[in-house]
Amino acid sequence: MHFVVIGGDAAGMSAASRAKRNKPDLTVTVLERSMDVSYSACGMPYNIADPDRDMDDLVVRHAKVFREKQGIDVLTGHYARAIDPAAKTVSGINSEGKNFEIHYDRLLIATGASAIIPDIPGMDLPGVMALKSLEDGRKIKTFLETKPVRKVIIIGMGYIALEMCEALRYRNINVVMVKSRPGFLPWMDEDMAHVVQDEVQSHDVRLCTGHAAERIELSGDRLKAVFSFLTLEADMVLAAVGVKPNSGIAANAGIKTGISHAIDVDRGLRTSDKNIFAAGDCADAFHLVTGRKTWIPLALRANRAGWAVADNVCGGNVQSDGIVGTAVFKVFDLEVARSGLSTAEASAAGFDPVSVTIKTNSRAHAHPGATDIWVQMTGDKKSGRLIGAQMVGREGAAHRINAAAVALHARMSVEQFAQTDLAYAPPFGPVWDPLLTAANQLLKKL
Amino acid sequence: MHFVVIGGDAAGMSAASRAKRNKPDLTVTVLERSMDVSYSACGMPYNIADPDRDMDDLVVRHAKVFREKQGIDVLTGHYARAIDPAAKTVSGINSEGKNFEIHYDRLLIATGASAIIPDIPGMDLPGVMALKSLEDGRKIKTFLETKPVRKVIIIGMGYIALEMCEALRYRNINVVMVKSRPGFLPWMDEDMAHVVQDEVQSHDVRLCTGHAAERIELSGDRLKAVFSFLTLEADMVLAAVGVKPNSGIAANAGIKTGISHAIDVDRGLRTSDKNIFAAGDCADAFHLVTGRKTWIPLALRANRAGWAVADNVCGGNVQSDGIVGTAVFKVFDLEVARSGLSTAEASAAGFDPVSVTIKTNSRAHAHPGATDIWVQMTGDKKSGRLIGAQMVGREGAAHRINAAAVALHARMSVEQFAQTDLAYAPPFGPVWDPLLTAANQLLKKL
Repeated sequence: MHFVVIGGDAAGMSAASRAKRNKPDLTVTVLERSMDVSYSACGMPYNIADPDRDMDDLVVRHAKVFREKQGIDVLTGHYARAIDPAAKTVSGINSEGKNFEIHYDRLLIATGASAIIPDIPGMDLPGVMALKSLEDGRKIKTFLETKPVRKVIIIGMGYIALEMCEALRYRNINVVMVKSRPGFLPWMDEDMAHVVQDEVQSHDVRLCTGHAAERIELSGDRLKAVFSFLTLEADMVLAAVGVKPNSGIAANAGIKTGISHAIDVDRGLRTSDKNIFAAGDCADAFHLVTGRKTWIPLALRANRAGWAVADNVCGGNVQSDGIVGTAVFKVFDLEVARSGLSTAEASAAGFDPVSVTIKTNSRAHAHPGATDIWVQMTGDKKSGRLIGAQMVGREGAAHRINAAAVALHARMSVEQFAQTDLAYAPPFGPVWDPLLTAANQLLKKL
Repeated sequence: MHFVVIGGDAAGMSAASRAKRNKPDLTVTVLERSMDVSYSACGMPYNIADPDRDMDDLVVRHAKVFREKQGIDVLTGHYARAIDPAAKTVSGINSEGKNFEIHYDRLLIATGASAIIPDIPGMDLPGVMALKSLEDGRKIKTFLETKPVRKVIIIGMGYIALEMCEALRYRNINVVMVKSRPGFLPWMDEDMAHVVQDEVQSHDVRLCTGHAAERIELSGDRLKAVFSFLTLEADMVLAAVGVKPNSGIAANAGIKTGISHAIDVDRGLRTSDKNIFAAGDCADAFHLVTGRKTWIPLALRANRAGWAVADNVCGGNVQSDGIVGTAVFKVFDLEVARSGLSTAEASAAGFDPVSVTIKTNSRAHAHPGATDIWVQMTGDKKSGRLIGAQMVGREGAAHRINAAAVALHARMSVEQFAQTDLAYAPPFGPVWDPLLTAANQLLKKL
């Protein structure tokens, strides 16, 4: 049997490796458009921050290793352009400009996501960048190292934008962040979002909300970015306004797409074509809290979905529980974490959400070094169920959110969660863990 | 109605405060043997470590505040010696040597636990200490500050012993730790216990296992401690061999005690006498993993049980889910955490335990600053259920354990836990959280 994978990053290589481990006699071919497979895309901002690190540090395993040690036919520089589900073929063009066509018995579409490029004039000017692929990362790093970059405009204020902001500030580059909509981290409780905003501003970053990008122009050696009611000059412009699923190849082949144009998959990661799977950022997922489809492109679920596809291709019947929307990022000295739904998302999903926000200490009473830690927790008034939690703090937020994530998987009520036996020692938190304090407060309002 | 509480620390003051908040017209009296109420006992080693901090920093709220702001009749220096369940009275002696007798409608026994004092000659010598009450802490700190203490022998190697070892090393005092039984942290996977042992030894601490304490003698200005096949001299000896529940007053009144001689309570914290509750370190608890009674004296469950008693005294019907045995401690630069059962405990409880131990990174591939992190995870071969997890690491162990704790509350299978959507960002962990990697490995053996 021939298992063909389009896309050689998290989902694709996880699937290829595991399928080959499951069934060593399986023929596995991976078609990767770029020359890079299996790299830590999330690590790029941290790598860019450090002039002494090579971007190739982020490669987890080279194509050569997959080929020689694992017996996977990894074809880099192979751009898959079309799928013919009737003939069971994938066709495309390779880096030498030659057409290829390959037959599959089972196909995995793991084409990932692409950076959204604002539809404005000037996005093709030199020095206007986006960050998604390792090649993008190399391009940005080379630009920073070969040009006199003193100031960068970042369009967007999501977590990639914030991670890149931090990376550039570590390189002592001035940063202005601009977004079209009002509100900084609008999915977060306003008080908590203000804490994050203060942290960013305290690192001399200028934040401009409510300014839509209109065009980018050359201005001597620099770039001029024109926004509504705002014009800025800089040496580089980074567009970080989000990503979109690479689902075009699937849609063109008649494969069903759904939410956010991601490829629609069932719990076994099967698309509307029984021989074709999809996994990773190009595919949708079930949200365990809403019970509905969602599209949240993150690394863990891509890897996990890749494994599930491999098992199912090899005759297994792995059914994905779904995700609960857990995410974390670091911005300067703050940890920002979330799991489940924000209040607005909960309302939109038909819940009757009630939220509390608490501030407590990261360490026990009188323990030195304690800092503030904030928790927002949301429950459903109708059912009493826990539906979301968000945390911000200088320590103790990133890993703590996992307790809420597991509770969301278990569909716990706030009351049940408030009874959980969480760890306590003075260096690590108050007796009542911040999540428990939030749950206790939330119980009073439910 | 008169609600009387014996014991003014975590469980007792939590109960008294909440009962008074629930029902402001309730008469609440607290009988506390010492002069201290409501203090952070767990913070004592960290306070002792720091010559510049006053021990009274650990007092969370003074008796005066409870009296004046909350209207609770806190009687410090009142040693309750006997309960007469038929007459519904508590009698005792106060710090002025006067007898007292007080009538209750509902009584809470929250007498806590005491340090176990080894039954050997010489434990009453000056410089021979134990640490449980704030008064013990003051005594140790005063001794360290007024005597030329260059070397301390700690009897015991549990977490209080290890926290005190760290505190003394921070004061540049030499430490020898001695225990009678073999094995360092025997409840932990041997490889992981070795990691902790190496950390302690790398701080110039001598560890001597398998030497039973026989006697302590004066030796000039110093103390001589005689163990089986080992004699040591030091300036101070600290006994840290564990604690025992202060259940004598209950047992003498005919109230049923059970496991580890702790007071036997139902899920509503009621003792065998319908008017008498018990909570905190003097009482037992239900273990959610085994479904049986257990005695694990820790601060969170004491506070929580105090609240439950208050609600039930005020006409509520709070039923405690129980505990899962979550605990964490810091020793030098290591975080050591556990939740649920060790392999041996699981066998003893009738499970068919299977364990794996994995070592992975505390941060993502190629992220700077990553250190090793170890996870042991145990599942039940018969049911597939997750029954325990242990973690050791320089970062990321303390708060991560809570994810396992919540999973234990939810009675998740290892398979379900392996599907949970845990947080990922490069500074905080690998894509597959260490707990997920452990769960994935464990699944292969189940």
